[in-house]
Amino acid sequence: MPGEITENIIKAKSAAVRLSATDTATKNKALSAMADALDRNREKILEANAEDMDAAARMMEAGKISASMVKRLQVDDGKITGMIAGVRDVAYLEDPVWETVSTIDLDDGLELYQVRCPIGVVGVIFESRPDVVPQIMSLCLKSGNAVAFKGGSEAASSNRALFEILSEAAASAGIPKEAFVLMESRDDITAILGMDEYLDLLIPRGSNSFVRYIQENTRIPVLGHAAGICTVYIDSEADMEKAFRVTLDSKIQYPAACNAAENVLVHKDVAGKFLPEMCRLFAENGVEVRADAAVSGIKGVSGTIRATEADWGTEYGAPVVSVKIVDSIGEAVEFIAKYGSNHTDAIITENSASMRYFVKMVDSADVFVNASTRFADGFRFGKGAEVGISTSKIHARGPVGMEGLMIYKYILIGKGQEVRGYADGSKKFKHLKNDRKCPL
Amino acid sequence: MPGEITENIIKAKSAAVRLSATDTATKNKALSAMADALDRNREKILEANAEDMDAAARMMEAGKISASMVKRLQVDDGKITGMIAGVRDVAYLEDPVWETVSTIDLDDGLELYQVRCPIGVVGVIFESRPDVVPQIMSLCLKSGNAVAFKGGSEAASSNRALFEILSEAAASAGIPKEAFVLMESRDDITAILGMDEYLDLLIPRGSNSFVRYIQENTRIPVLGHAAGICTVYIDSEADMEKAFRVTLDSKIQYPAACNAAENVLVHKDVAGKFLPEMCRLFAENGVEVRADAAVSGIKGVSGTIRATEADWGTEYGAPVVSVKIVDSIGEAVEFIAKYGSNHTDAIITENSASMRYFVKMVDSADVFVNASTRFADGFRFGKGAEVGISTSKIHARGPVGMEGLMIYKYILIGKGQEVRGYADGSKKFKHLKNDRKCPL
Repeated sequence: MPGEITENIIKAKSAAVRLSATDTATKNKALSAMADALDRNREKILEANAEDMDAAARMMEAGKISASMVKRLQVDDGKITGMIAGVRDVAYLEDPVWETVSTIDLDDGLELYQVRCPIGVVGVIFESRPDVVPQIMSLCLKSGNAVAFKGGSEAASSNRALFEILSEAAASAGIPKEAFVLMESRDDITAILGMDEYLDLLIPRGSNSFVRYIQENTRIPVLGHAAGICTVYIDSEADMEKAFRVTLDSKIQYPAACNAAENVLVHKDVAGKFLPEMCRLFAENGVEVRADAAVSGIKGVSGTIRATEADWGTEYGAPVVSVKIVDSIGEAVEFIAKYGSNHTDAIITENSASMRYFVKMVDSADVFVNASTRFADGFRFGKGAEVGISTSKIHARGPVGMEGLMIYKYILIGKGQEVRGYADGSKKFKHLKNDRKCPL
Repeated sequence: MPGEITENIIKAKSAAVRLSATDTATKNKALSAMADALDRNREKILEANAEDMDAAARMMEAGKISASMVKRLQVDDGKITGMIAGVRDVAYLEDPVWETVSTIDLDDGLELYQVRCPIGVVGVIFESRPDVVPQIMSLCLKSGNAVAFKGGSEAASSNRALFEILSEAAASAGIPKEAFVLMESRDDITAILGMDEYLDLLIPRGSNSFVRYIQENTRIPVLGHAAGICTVYIDSEADMEKAFRVTLDSKIQYPAACNAAENVLVHKDVAGKFLPEMCRLFAENGVEVRADAAVSGIKGVSGTIRATEADWGTEYGAPVVSVKIVDSIGEAVEFIAKYGSNHTDAIITENSASMRYFVKMVDSADVFVNASTRFADGFRFGKGAEVGISTSKIHARGPVGMEGLMIYKYILIGKGQEVRGYADGSKKFKHLKNDRKCPL
């Protein structure tokens, strides 16, 4: 119920401060208890999931949800083992809380420490996959953040079971129980969007329209991305083998992902070399090609569909690709600025001046040289875990790991100093940077 | 005109990308040209300021603006010299653009670089003081950001003169002229609040109600603080000399500042020792004391006014202070959570457990131990310059220097790698962190 959710989030805010001051040993003990509890409650989780699966099967028959959604919803023993391993992995991640980021002595005996701390209360809203529950709860716990989350309604039983098992296990190890809040209805989300005094960050993971709805209806900062319109640009000095390999992987390795390529641009000087073989590879892999007139005019290119203006700015999320010939790298960069979503874009070239121009002038979170756009991912980037992929220009950008859940505070330790003397010039700041850790 | 402003900001967005790729030497040459231009155009600046001062004098007579506002508006030869020195100082700041923040080899020949870059286009809205113009323009230029700014209407002539002198000088040194936009009316601000596609950050500097208006009417991220309700807590183990000194300085050194103290809490065990002398010091320095009943009941305390509930959450910005007795450090922390604005709070104590408890449990940007709240300031923190003070929980918190204008992008340099092999398990990531700098 919305009223209840509001109350729970106010309680989470106060629990967040206590959680932020909880020591590493207690947090790791809680993570271990959570993993054990998942292992002990396999039956309960599978039963809850069976309920969701029954309902989902009926909805699929009625054409209301897709087979891939049902597949993502399913939890089996192997998936539970994966969840357990994931929670245990988080225990091994370094505790980011209270790390000294920088130290400067403003004067003798007037020491300023910038210390890392959790941002507070995070709202996470995601679709279907119940394995997100242990992942998010363990990451938030380790980083000292309280979390309110809401999964897809089709996974309601699974999510509730997982939430109860995990939050009870955490509480048994000394974590404030109010730090975890489960939201169960769409009304709950509407209710929290106005709670900018209590929620410090929202992380929506779902369809573009859903993310945009959240962004447009709250003053709480939102981490994420509405669209993933990624481009691969084949430069005039591209190595053709690399170009074929990277372009194909960027498109077909997992077309539904946000970091899959939607647009392929090719420099006019290599269009004749690149396009016939590339279009053949696309056809061979069941990819529909929407192209401009110049592309279909290339000798050896066949089977393309004429692209419309709207196609260049469309995230297909499917085996469909838009292909265009450009006159220069500058035109490619302008195209990306106009139609891209500042997510991930790649250049294929052997020319280092072109590499440099592209990575500097393309204003995207991830700019790749001779590598598939599909590498844009928290796990692949070595972050251990991924909170989301952000196309924002502040706080955190690109694949975001636990660092996106952290901020810092300044701690100044003095001996009774006043500003007065520094203001009237009788005292002078020394501003000596050093490596001392915060003693508190 | 709003229509013109919209166009100018769209142009600034495209200029921002070029500015972000401008080398350090060119930027420093531009800063030097800007300083020289200020020196050469002293007459022009003083004439423009005289126009503003004439109008301001008439408005002051009509009671529309205060004498302190008029004083802040005034530019004289000494202030121009200060502006010139400020611009030259920025040339000496390290160039933060394109610094390699972290490097990890995902695999052999698949190198991921996290590289610092400007956030893009910044909107800065401030009141009266024309010296903010060179300060903001030089900081944005050095950090590679385009900037649209609007000063107080009472400083319109001064701001326009400074803007023209500075932007022409920067352009003459090769900086894209479109990177600087001057807004001149309140309508211009209204027009830009909806431009979240083009503006990456807003920095409003002004009254609380003005900052809150901006925060509540835009989806562009806002860096700043609406209120500065700071508390000094005198612990049961406080050194009384330090307590008197820090409390007085926090209140009277500059009462109009956001980091001045509004509330003083005192532990009951030392109330009898602290309050009579403190209240005497407040009275001696013309500070009005609003206190709860317990305070006025202390022997030796006189002349206090009874505080209302509203007083505890009021930013006086004046020589007025609220004083309250608390039973414990826990009650002090709860009071700060309830009435404070997460800006700057201080504890006076000799007990290290109390220090630790206070700095961990007070969720403010700046938490001080035995030091005046007035130290919460970018210059005093050694940042060289201050963009603003933020009470946000993401991106940048507390006094913010040039780092608040920066974000990063990820650059992946490969040799044609696909994700496919890593996804099917035939290849494994190495994830080797190292110190290599981005070669592009």
